[in-house]
Amino acid sequence: MKTNATIAAICTGHGGAIAVLRMSGGDTFAILNKVFRPLRKNFSILDAEANRIYNGFIVDDGGNEIDRVVVSAYRAPHSYTGEDVAEISCHASSYIQKEILSVLIKNGAELAKHGEFTRRAFQNKKMDLSQAEAVADLIASKSKAEHDIAVNQMRGGITLEIKRLRDLLLKFTSLMELELDFSEEDVEFADRSQLKNILQETERYLQRLVGSFRYGNAIKNGVPVAICGQPNAGKSTLLNALLNDERAIVTDIPGTTRDVLEDFLTIDGILYRLIDTAGIRETDDQIEKIGISKAKSAILKSEIVLIVLDPKDDIQRQFSDIIPPETPPEKIVAIINKSDICTDTDASVLPYGVNVLKISAKQKTGIEDLTALISRLYNADVFSTGDVILTNVRHYEIFSAALASVLRAENALESGLSGEFVSQDIREALRNFAEITGDEITTEEVLGNIFKNFCIGK
Amino acid sequence: MKTNATIAAICTGHGGAIAVLRMSGGDTFAILNKVFRPLRKNFSILDAEANRIYNGFIVDDGGNEIDRVVVSAYRAPHSYTGEDVAEISCHASSYIQKEILSVLIKNGAELAKHGEFTRRAFQNKKMDLSQAEAVADLIASKSKAEHDIAVNQMRGGITLEIKRLRDLLLKFTSLMELELDFSEEDVEFADRSQLKNILQETERYLQRLVGSFRYGNAIKNGVPVAICGQPNAGKSTLLNALLNDERAIVTDIPGTTRDVLEDFLTIDGILYRLIDTAGIRETDDQIEKIGISKAKSAILKSEIVLIVLDPKDDIQRQFSDIIPPETPPEKIVAIINKSDICTDTDASVLPYGVNVLKISAKQKTGIEDLTALISRLYNADVFSTGDVILTNVRHYEIFSAALASVLRAENALESGLSGEFVSQDIREALRNFAEITGDEITTEEVLGNIFKNFCIGK
Repeated sequence: MKTNATIAAICTGHGGAIAVLRMSGGDTFAILNKVFRPLRKNFSILDAEANRIYNGFIVDDGGNEIDRVVVSAYRAPHSYTGEDVAEISCHASSYIQKEILSVLIKNGAELAKHGEFTRRAFQNKKMDLSQAEAVADLIASKSKAEHDIAVNQMRGGITLEIKRLRDLLLKFTSLMELELDFSEEDVEFADRSQLKNILQETERYLQRLVGSFRYGNAIKNGVPVAICGQPNAGKSTLLNALLNDERAIVTDIPGTTRDVLEDFLTIDGILYRLIDTAGIRETDDQIEKIGISKAKSAILKSEIVLIVLDPKDDIQRQFSDIIPPETPPEKIVAIINKSDICTDTDASVLPYGVNVLKISAKQKTGIEDLTALISRLYNADVFSTGDVILTNVRHYEIFSAALASVLRAENALESGLSGEFVSQDIREALRNFAEITGDEITTEEVLGNIFKNFCIGK
Repeated sequence: MKTNATIAAICTGHGGAIAVLRMSGGDTFAILNKVFRPLRKNFSILDAEANRIYNGFIVDDGGNEIDRVVVSAYRAPHSYTGEDVAEISCHASSYIQKEILSVLIKNGAELAKHGEFTRRAFQNKKMDLSQAEAVADLIASKSKAEHDIAVNQMRGGITLEIKRLRDLLLKFTSLMELELDFSEEDVEFADRSQLKNILQETERYLQRLVGSFRYGNAIKNGVPVAICGQPNAGKSTLLNALLNDERAIVTDIPGTTRDVLEDFLTIDGILYRLIDTAGIRETDDQIEKIGISKAKSAILKSEIVLIVLDPKDDIQRQFSDIIPPETPPEKIVAIINKSDICTDTDASVLPYGVNVLKISAKQKTGIEDLTALISRLYNADVFSTGDVILTNVRHYEIFSAALASVLRAENALESGLSGEFVSQDIREALRNFAEITGDEITTEEVLGNIFKNFCIGK
């Protein structure tokens, strides 16, 4: 059996005062022993105890000190990867980090590949595949909602859902297999209505999970909010007021600038992506038509549409000029600006069902009402805390495929097709789930379940 | 006595997989106890042992898990700062880092100021001021030479030099004070030639230290190397060949791009700053005269001047057009390019003493010879490994002031001025040294030294 190579990598980001390098694998302490000179006399790092910190120096091949460091020792299997692990805390100089990594490699470590520590944690059954995936989501999380979903998934939220789903389908399969075994006796062994109930329950679960992706995806990438309005309606002022509001914290995401027509905003732990549709229009000035259709498409795709209206002009015309008629009114917020100078604007000319708010972007009045309204409109209450929310496209696609299989099985059952057809769909769904957790569903397991639950002594 | 507040900060850089927050101060574990939920049952982090690692969760005020973390515990006085210290390793999500910092602050920690951990290490006498300063240099180090100087300083290199210098001057002062004490007896107690020898030895030490700054500063900021040559001589090709040469590692320094006319290059652990003088000229095209004078000044200020010559043109004219006549020839490398097509160029037309190298930038032949020559020209051999090299302007200025004081004292001694004048200069120099290490030189100390060394029983 091939044992894993010992891997090493720099784990912390650029800059800062301290940096951490991590090693994992059977040779971790043997490699460290060649390059680590402990402060404690007559001590060898080979004797490092688990969960202990050791002070000393990393030295190069010539014995010259590269840096004074702190080594944190973890012992298999009680480590992140399940292997022997050492973390080296050093000064965050890029030179020092590269030098330390270099002496580790020279002395037998291999450069870790992307996610390899977590991959080993999965291989060594410290976590399943969906939990491993959640680690990456957690590290990338920018808002409370995103963070909470990742934490839930890391703690096995999806794993638990899948366990529930698998239990249902394994029960189903067991009943089915039993019927098939006794098929020559020409009895319909399993109660078909019981089978149908199991499939319906499974379908409901899957529908909820697949449905959660729209919410999860929005949380991960920011809930899309279109901002529109004719020039001089006060859109920029409103945008600035929103972004500077204390309650609405501007999220600092690298690479995102006002230039790319998108701003990010966090309200009550949810990330909102503000899309300036006028920006889209202006950018494509020469091909105005495409610009307008892009703006239209952005409005239709958004979860919330903010339209800033100038009360000194015909607000009904402004509204109909910009908002595509097919936009559901309940997701539109008609913001009647300049409430400080125009107090008696008649909002009843706007379509029924549209949310109306009078504000003054300049005076910064009504901004809090607006953020509260946005938060209320993006009603996350359909999901409660602890609910599993899909944010991962892979999971979404697999659960969607599983849902399709289950629906096929329901149809097959309904049409009175033979049990073999039905079972095939269900096995397909079980294989799907195994893809998510990284487990293998063998026929052995299906059989094992039959014998365990039925134990007919045959 | 006011005790220090407990401080907290994020210590690692942006990005990465893991991040580390650090807390230091008397309340470290009391604060941690409010926000850390250990995995181990019936355990309180208040009982954390020194140099131990504890697994658990950081929770918010509502008891919700922010992240699964690892806490490294250090106990006063055996920690970096000399106080109780805890380091929290978490997932490197910016959200998580901010949330953890926020709960620490909410529960009584204060946000650490720049360098405050190291400042406390100094206050608690874990290191002196020059060592504390070296920490910042070490973190910023980009090359081996820079790193080695910082390591030497951190290990007390400057402190040791100052100890040597102080011992000399304290011996001097003791002898002097003795003379002053007995001055009414009208005897020249101290042997003036002995005093003179002490000052001369001190002066030699200081001259060497002050002189090392030119080297140290170059190492810290990169040894300035001017690159010049008429258009189409092949300067860009050479620059690319140099920067892509394996031996000459291009150093990745943020904010430095080809646009700013400077490239960085490391050869044999020394950082070189390549200054494209043509770039300077081109930039200020409209005010050509100023451009040329800037290029001239860059050439004169550089430690090494590379001039790329096109052998298809008059190389003597190219040389004299660009190189100011006052440039020392030994720091000039005349690079005769296009050696692949022009093989018989006569270099003897160039001024005597100039280094000549024939290369082909295009064919990449002779590049290794060039880097070897650069390395040889910037002869660092005047200093040997372990020598104290000043890189810090503060130290340079203080040592320069001390040198001036010592020279004044030498003059005063020479001119037969009274001992009081001489002593004043020496005390000034001692105060200077104390500024570097952060110590206080009291007259008490001077007196103490007299009694200790002389012990005349009076």
